[in-house]
Amino acid sequence: MKADPPFARIAIVGVGLIGESVALAAERKWPSISIDRIDRDASLDPIRGADLIVLAAPVLTNIALLAQLDTNVRAGALVTDVGSTKRRVVAAAEQRAFAFIGGHPMAGAARGGASHARADLFEGRTWILTPRADHGTDALARLERFVVGLGAVPHIMTPELHDRFVGAVSHLPQLSASALMHVVGKLAGDAGLELAGPGLRDSTRLAASPADIWRDIAATNDDVLKGALDALIHTLTELRDSLPGGEAVDAVFTSACRWRDALDRTGGKDE
Amino acid sequence: MKADPPFARIAIVGVGLIGESVALAAERKWPSISIDRIDRDASLDPIRGADLIVLAAPVLTNIALLAQLDTNVRAGALVTDVGSTKRRVVAAAEQRAFAFIGGHPMAGAARGGASHARADLFEGRTWILTPRADHGTDALARLERFVVGLGAVPHIMTPELHDRFVGAVSHLPQLSASALMHVVGKLAGDAGLELAGPGLRDSTRLAASPADIWRDIAATNDDVLKGALDALIHTLTELRDSLPGGEAVDAVFTSACRWRDALDRTGGKDE
Repeated sequence: MKADPPFARIAIVGVGLIGESVALAAERKWPSISIDRIDRDASLDPIRGADLIVLAAPVLTNIALLAQLDTNVRAGALVTDVGSTKRRVVAAAEQRAFAFIGGHPMAGAARGGASHARADLFEGRTWILTPRADHGTDALARLERFVVGLGAVPHIMTPELHDRFVGAVSHLPQLSASALMHVVGKLAGDAGLELAGPGLRDSTRLAASPADIWRDIAATNDDVLKGALDALIHTLTELRDSLPGGEAVDAVFTSACRWRDALDRTGGKDE
Repeated sequence: MKADPPFARIAIVGVGLIGESVALAAERKWPSISIDRIDRDASLDPIRGADLIVLAAPVLTNIALLAQLDTNVRAGALVTDVGSTKRRVVAAAEQRAFAFIGGHPMAGAARGGASHARADLFEGRTWILTPRADHGTDALARLERFVVGLGAVPHIMTPELHDRFVGAVSHLPQLSASALMHVVGKLAGDAGLELAGPGLRDSTRLAASPADIWRDIAATNDDVLKGALDALIHTLTELRDSLPGGEAVDAVFTSACRWRDALDRTGGKDE
């Protein structure tokens, strides 16, 4: 027997990879659910009937949308988002009249866009939620049930800890992969790329990610990312300065092997 | 009918991932072949009977071994290596009495060591050969036949072009992946790594590579790698300095997407 959905009618604003995958996963889990898919620049009128509104546009667009929601969100409805940074959007939502709980599904694909959406995108993935302490527990419990219904594993933390951890394990690797692909392409050209093996392909798989989403993520986690990029630049500079003798190569590779083992031990999906 | 091996008796000095995989692949292709596996610090006496000697230790060890081979290599035998840089070893071999052709199979695995060796490691992979212009074509033809027998695709180029191309598409990604894993581990710790998705796993898969091999590669391609690391540091610095406005994020991500598409079009194995 199919359980009732925790929200009978949801509106999703921004229909890209994540927004459309939320819709597909919810429709698969709860066939009775009603879903309004709303383009990020379309009229927000359909939101009035929803009891859950999911903001799934790039982060700065989500923040701009918040200011337009006061007149459209009906009493008792909950607003959430699926953006990759949390401090800025949570702070912006505090000034609004409606209830808001920030969210971030730790899922994605090499290529963005609704055409790559999948109902199983969130299967087994962490979905971080950043409720405020003064939220009613009922809204949080319903949102957790929704997220579990999409196949994800909810994980509660503060917006501050989210941005620091995710800056390290997701945003920095993305910036690094794009920088690497940009530099390797310029240095090697098409003739050099012909020689590439699986190592380059693995390390630059993220480089297919679209610029517009990442511009907003970088802008709203800039303090964390500045520190992380400084640390990476420092390590690369140490490597550069000890190439002939290899002292830094030894130290960095030994540390990297240890952390890579730690990453393997987390038992996450290596796909 | 099995063809005769191009070399009836081969000696492999250095029995790690690549050396042992050469042995396994040769034995599979030519059951009649005789192979001496020689530890890198063992006596070189068994080399006297070989008509092909494969140096498969780290690059600086291979270079040191060259000086000890004059008295052990019999007349008419060919020496090759499987190291990841070519200028230094080729220059060192020019002072020796025996014939030498540099080689580099563009294959590997996330983990080194003979226990990870596989007879099919070279299947479909590029195997770069860097013959001198004054070599007899017979030695080169036999070595090409050997490499093809192991499943690889021979690709002739100069040591200079090899080190420049491979520095860009293989050595820089390796240094970058190890630096990234080192920094992410320090910033995120075990608790942060629990949140990692497939993006971090892909971009740091190379970080399990052993330090000793890479210390030698870095030392023998240091001029190319210094330039490549400078370019990567420059791009990361541009990203860092435009995080709030995102101008460099736009430019770098757009360029990276284009080069990643070019890499996909090379049709290499994405595994």
